[in-house]
Amino acid sequence: MNVAVIGGHASSKKMYSMAQETGRLIAREGWVLICGGGPGIMEAACRGAKEAGGLTVGILPSFDGKEANDFLDVRLTTGLGYARNILVVRAADAIIAIAGEYGTLSEIAFAFNDPKPIVGIHTWKVRGLKQVNSAKEAFSYIKAVLKRRKK
Amino acid sequence: MNVAVIGGHASSKKMYSMAQETGRLIAREGWVLICGGGPGIMEAACRGAKEAGGLTVGILPSFDGKEANDFLDVRLTTGLGYARNILVVRAADAIIAIAGEYGTLSEIAFAFNDPKPIVGIHTWKVRGLKQVNSAKEAFSYIKAVLKRRKK
Amino acid sequence: MNVAVIGGHASSKKMYSMAQETGRLIAREGWVLICGGGPGIMEAACRGAKEAGGLTVGILPSFDGKEANDFLDVRLTTGLGYARNILVVRAADAIIAIAGEYGTLSEIAFAFNDPKPIVGIHTWKVRGLKQVNSAKEAFSYIKAVLKRRKK
Amino acid sequence: MNVAVIGGHASSKKMYSMAQETGRLIAREGWVLICGGGPGIMEAACRGAKEAGGLTVGILPSFDGKEANDFLDVRLTTGLGYARNILVVRAADAIIAIAGEYGTLSEIAFAFNDPKPIVGIHTWKVRGLKQVNSAKEAFSYIKAVLKRRKK
Repeated sequence: MNVAVIGGHASSKKMYSMAQETGRLIAREGWVLICGGGPGIMEAACRGAKEAGGLTVGILPSFDGKEANDFLDVRLTTGLGYARNILVVRAADAIIAIAGEYGTLSEIAFAFNDPKPIVGIHTWKVRGLKQVNSAKEAFSYIKAVLKRRKK
Repeated sequence: MNVAVIGGHASSKKMYSMAQETGRLIAREGWVLICGGGPGIMEAACRGAKEAGGLTVGILPSFDGKEANDFLDVRLTTGLGYARNILVVRAADAIIAIAGEYGTLSEIAFAFNDPKPIVGIHTWKVRGLKQVNSAKEAFSYIKAVLKRRKK
Repeated sequence: MNVAVIGGHASSKKMYSMAQETGRLIAREGWVLICGGGPGIMEAACRGAKEAGGLTVGILPSFDGKEANDFLDVRLTTGLGYARNILVVRAADAIIAIAGEYGTLSEIAFAFNDPKPIVGIHTWKVRGLKQVNSAKEAFSYIKAVLKRRKK
Repeated sequence: MNVAVIGGHASSKKMYSMAQETGRLIAREGWVLICGGGPGIMEAACRGAKEAGGLTVGILPSFDGKEANDFLDVRLTTGLGYARNILVVRAADAIIAIAGEYGTLSEIAFAFNDPKPIVGIHTWKVRGLKQVNSAKEAFSYIKAVLKRRKK
């Protein structure tokens, strides 16, 4: 299973910790962490996933990958700029959105379009988007959704 | 100048009229109308633009273009599905969002990312998005923004 | 019908004339000319199409369209760089390749992949690619193929 | 480093072995193997890489990944069809082309466009493309090129 963590380049300490814990939970479950590969929430999720021995993939906007964070096992440069956001969504079986700016909003919208299961933590209020307050709740929500799907 | 009208496949009669008038105003100004090429708001905007002798372009999700509305001068099939939304935004100098569902939300988000000038009519409430109540107001807003840019 | 003319940024005088005549023939038939929007072969085809009162569309690699030639009715910026080549192929009902470099080769290959009818004039020798020596022959070949398809 | 192996869905036994050995060499060097994720040459390269304990990434054309081979650590569905070919090239630091059909040709062309170092084994004859006769030679060529680049 691929689970994407989406969120902004910048993040508060609180949200950074939240993303890090989310990454840890994803890795412990044996899921591959997909993200946009950059700093902030993306870095935090990758850091957490690597702490738990997980596999991390960054789908990067640039041609050269200089924006890549230090916790990526796989760095995929695209040269597409923000158009790579759609690829993060399409590569994911489920998505956890943490805080975030307009890039994150575009990914939330795409998740509803495709559609892909998604849950948010302190992110954009979007009609139909389930929001929770902790990494654990987000993880449990996604786990339950993916379990139901398999049946 | 390219001005995109974005909005849903389905639309109320009121929003259809609004989009049609928006298309007319765009065409009268000599702007090219860009849209996703489908039914609903997209069709209405194209219909209005053609009434005013304008040029209409649809950037379509499918390979075969069967979803194309009847008022397109240029039908561009992409085979990208909803990923074509980013192309609508990138091809536009400015964007008018009318009502709409998640696809429209993804385009609004991309407009802030790129960034491109955008105004909404009864569409998603998104932080930073100027909303107005009529085609005329939307048109005037975009016209003023594009004028300022040129200087 | 959309017919794409593909070819390089640079071109000999002879190939420029060939592309210009191809553009004229496309426009006279009432087909929309699709191209990559740039200089060289693309410019020549657009110039020819405009001489014959046709409609021209350029799908441009950049965000700002500064590479656009002067004979485009519709300028679609993509910000995708050479990845826009696939969009030229996908938007076309048929393709005429004239001379060209590696970008043109990628489009020829994509035409066989999709697949789309294609003919070449003094372009890359590719297995299965029909090559002719004049704009008129290329035009006639494409016209016959499109006619057969409709039936 | 990411090294892509590109080639067709179908392959002869000889070419399958060649791709498998190429995958092994890539993995032993500690490089990540990037490919289109499907059967044939792609499967062979992934199989080889996994035999040598490497990391394998497939950038898949479909939405659901049903064409994925059994030797992928990371399965990235794109829903872009053959347009995903450009992503394989963009994600790679260097490319090894083995046999292959038109899809492979499009990737070779893109490699020259971007440009990315590339070498071929019994693949399309393309102006400027270095061709060799064995996995070992291809690997050595790419290794030398990447070494020179770093300096």
